[in-house]
Amino acid sequence: MCVGKIINVDQDAFLDNMSYTNQKRNAGYRAAEYVEDGMVVGLGTGSTAKFVVEKIGERIEDEGLDIVGIPTSLETEKQAKKAGITIIELDEADKIDLAIDGADEVDPDKQLIKGGGGALLREKIVAHNSKRYIVIVDASKMVEKLGVDFALPVEILPRWTEGISDCVRKLGCEPELRISKGKTYRTDNGNNILDCDFEGIEEPKELSQRLASIPGVLEHGLFIDLTDLVILGNEGGFEELD
Amino acid sequence: MCVGKIINVDQDAFLDNMSYTNQKRNAGYRAAEYVEDGMVVGLGTGSTAKFVVEKIGERIEDEGLDIVGIPTSLETEKQAKKAGITIIELDEADKIDLAIDGADEVDPDKQLIKGGGGALLREKIVAHNSKRYIVIVDASKMVEKLGVDFALPVEILPRWTEGISDCVRKLGCEPELRISKGKTYRTDNGNNILDCDFEGIEEPKELSQRLASIPGVLEHGLFIDLTDLVILGNEGGFEELD
Repeated sequence: MCVGKIINVDQDAFLDNMSYTNQKRNAGYRAAEYVEDGMVVGLGTGSTAKFVVEKIGERIEDEGLDIVGIPTSLETEKQAKKAGITIIELDEADKIDLAIDGADEVDPDKQLIKGGGGALLREKIVAHNSKRYIVIVDASKMVEKLGVDFALPVEILPRWTEGISDCVRKLGCEPELRISKGKTYRTDNGNNILDCDFEGIEEPKELSQRLASIPGVLEHGLFIDLTDLVILGNEGGFEELD
Repeated sequence: MCVGKIINVDQDAFLDNMSYTNQKRNAGYRAAEYVEDGMVVGLGTGSTAKFVVEKIGERIEDEGLDIVGIPTSLETEKQAKKAGITIIELDEADKIDLAIDGADEVDPDKQLIKGGGGALLREKIVAHNSKRYIVIVDASKMVEKLGVDFALPVEILPRWTEGISDCVRKLGCEPELRISKGKTYRTDNGNNILDCDFEGIEEPKELSQRLASIPGVLEHGLFIDLTDLVILGNEGGFEELD
């Protein structure tokens, strides 16, 4: 019985993952259709965003699509290069026409939590400076309220972590310093991440401003009023929320 | 005639500087009287703050004053050690009882511009986390409106300087990347500084929030609602504004 139960759970999880992978692919492939010849495109990071890069690669091969990509991480940069996408650095761009990225949570107002992967500062700069920002998700990322199940990542200066944590805690959360492989996690800018459990965020916009005003908080994972379009992948295709 | 004129200007400037130095000393010495046995004290940086360190050193020698100092720069750390002050790093402190620092501009509401020296991130963390924050200035720093004569320093991520500058410019200023000795200036956190000429800041509190919300802006020189007491040095002594 016990063994049977474990197998059942594993099967369920396996099927769930299969399903989410389908949804992610459908969302990512659809988003890649918004890419047009001559565009500078911000390329997101993660398990959904990788399908965008995959599809753009196919379109380059099939249609001779001619674009320039700005990757938000080293991981994406590698994949994009393999896919045949011309890559430039953020500081070489004079515009970003379109950015496409995943999210950790999306609420009904298209407000997001991002930063589970730790690249939130670069991702937010790209999102903020892109003419159009498309967010692609599977059903598991859609929430009624942000921050109930997912701890908000907050990037902080790696000095006086305790003091800065206290300031963040006063906004109504339990911050935990992110640890990875037994060591304090460092972002690609050399900073630390606090994962902040708010048990639900009532006023995302206000919280965003209050977090940004704390000295030593360099960025946080609330992406407010940035999203133009959410593409929600489903089993048969996708749904667009704008 | 022409030579005489130049000499007159130099004499005026010389006398002005003498006068400001007196005022700075009077403000700094007065501020040092607020330091009490057992305190953890944030030590500011610059030509006014150095008089605080000097006076604290004298009090250690004369009265056996026993305090711990947190310097906001390497320059202050060196001076404090020479003066016999026990030094700890910001991340070793579990509280800051009092911080004393200079400012580039102070308005009638005790709002400040700081960061001419480029150490604004650490200075703001110390100011924000101190139980009491005293600002010491000479008469030349008192202004009716912030940002008329002094460009607001804004610390930014050294990536896509152009893009971040554009976002800052939209708030109504002309940002200029700080250059020092022919090279792009780097803060002690490895970031860049934009000196932003607003030709007068109408709403410092609102501007502070808007700047903080720009991705890639890590900190800025507006110190809003942080100051408990301003000590304005004058020729004969000082004036306190609280």
